[in-house]
Amino acid sequence: MTDTWLTSLITAGPQEGFELAITLSRRGVKYTQPDGEVLHRLRPDYAENADSLIAGSQVVAVNFQTVAAANDYWR
Amino acid sequence: MTDTWLTSLITAGPQEGFELAITLSRRGVKYTQPDGEVLHRLRPDYAENADSLIAGSQVVAVNFQTVAAANDYWR
Amino acid sequence: MTDTWLTSLITAGPQEGFELAITLSRRGVKYTQPDGEVLHRLRPDYAENADSLIAGSQVVAVNFQTVAAANDYWR
Amino acid sequence: MTDTWLTSLITAGPQEGFELAITLSRRGVKYTQPDGEVLHRLRPDYAENADSLIAGSQVVAVNFQTVAAANDYWR
Amino acid sequence: MTDTWLTSLITAGPQEGFELAITLSRRGVKYTQPDGEVLHRLRPDYAENADSLIAGSQVVAVNFQTVAAANDYWR
Amino acid sequence: MTDTWLTSLITAGPQEGFELAITLSRRGVKYTQPDGEVLHRLRPDYAENADSLIAGSQVVAVNFQTVAAANDYWR
Repeated sequence: MTDTWLTSLITAGPQEGFELAITLSRRGVKYTQPDGEVLHRLRPDYAENADSLIAGSQVVAVNFQTVAAANDYWR
Repeated sequence: MTDTWLTSLITAGPQEGFELAITLSRRGVKYTQPDGEVLHRLRPDYAENADSLIAGSQVVAVNFQTVAAANDYWR
Repeated sequence: MTDTWLTSLITAGPQEGFELAITLSRRGVKYTQPDGEVLHRLRPDYAENADSLIAGSQVVAVNFQTVAAANDYWR
Repeated sequence: MTDTWLTSLITAGPQEGFELAITLSRRGVKYTQPDGEVLHRLRPDYAENADSLIAGSQVVAVNFQTVAAANDYWR
Repeated sequence: MTDTWLTSLITAGPQEGFELAITLSRRGVKYTQPDGEVLHRLRPDYAENADSLIAGSQVVAVNFQTVAAANDYWR
Repeated sequence: MTDTWLTSLITAGPQEGFELAITLSRRGVKYTQPDGEVLHRLRPDYAENADSLIAGSQVVAVNFQTVAAANDYWR
């Protein structure tokens, strides 16, 4: 990818940090499947499947660990 | 999402921290599937399925690591 | 949940810490499915299934990381 | 469980630490399914299944992180 | 493998770090299956499967934790 | 196992560290299934299956975290 989408892990607070973790999780998918058309077509497969949603939340949780540590837990 | 739901990772004690980890895990799902109606419909799929419950507990465990570290393990 | 079940992550030693990790893992399930009747009914689904047992041990391992760090690894 | 099986995370070296991680992973299973007869019966289900073996190695990897940190990586 | 592909975990910034995490994740696959022909044949199996894409993003997230820590989170 | 296969987590650089993570991941399998004949027979099950390869890369990623931390990220 040639666009710049990530210049810092520092966020104003934990909620923005959680949202950055969401972004990181989606980017982890996009690097493998950059075709937005395919991703759109797959959406019902995971957005309406409990196990996929839980697996997605797991990825967010791992990325949130990274962002939270980067921000010294916003203490 | 435009509502404010997370302003701090600091909690009064470990049990409140565990409950915050539950909240984080659920929010990780809601960012992907914000439709409460769909989530309600999916509930039996995971709440009565042993593997889904274990996978959910795994997400909570990862988020609890983050919250516990943020609170210096309430030592 | 309104009962108090977790007041500290500090334990007397590593075995008690491992058992606390078991408790945390089970609580992660109970917050999603508080109905003991349902959990009892699901027991054969995971207690006699190798992959479920391995997944359960994974959750315990993640929670044990947290408890062990909280106790400075009982050094 | 009433037997004492874990008194320290400190080991003589990394290989003993890896073997302790194996023990922790197996104990994570045994707390859920203490019946050795059942575990013996399940053995072919995971010991001859590639995905189960990989999942088992994942649990060991997580527990090895804990043991390695406890031993300051045997540096 | 005899080629040199990893000489440092230090990157110019977080986006380059994320891309290194992608590389690490792919290398983790290649060490098990070095045959590019097979990997090419398998591509539709994961690139058009929501659960595989999520699992892939999970691996990237774990590797990104390592790279981010190595770079002190680019603070 | 009675052979000595792991005497240190310290490596000359990150690539050797990644290769040690591969070794740790394979050993995590071998402790459960020491029979090389069985492992050889299972190889097509995972080496030509996208989800198994991703799961394997996840185990490597977790072990690489440990090795990288042991080496202070080769900084």
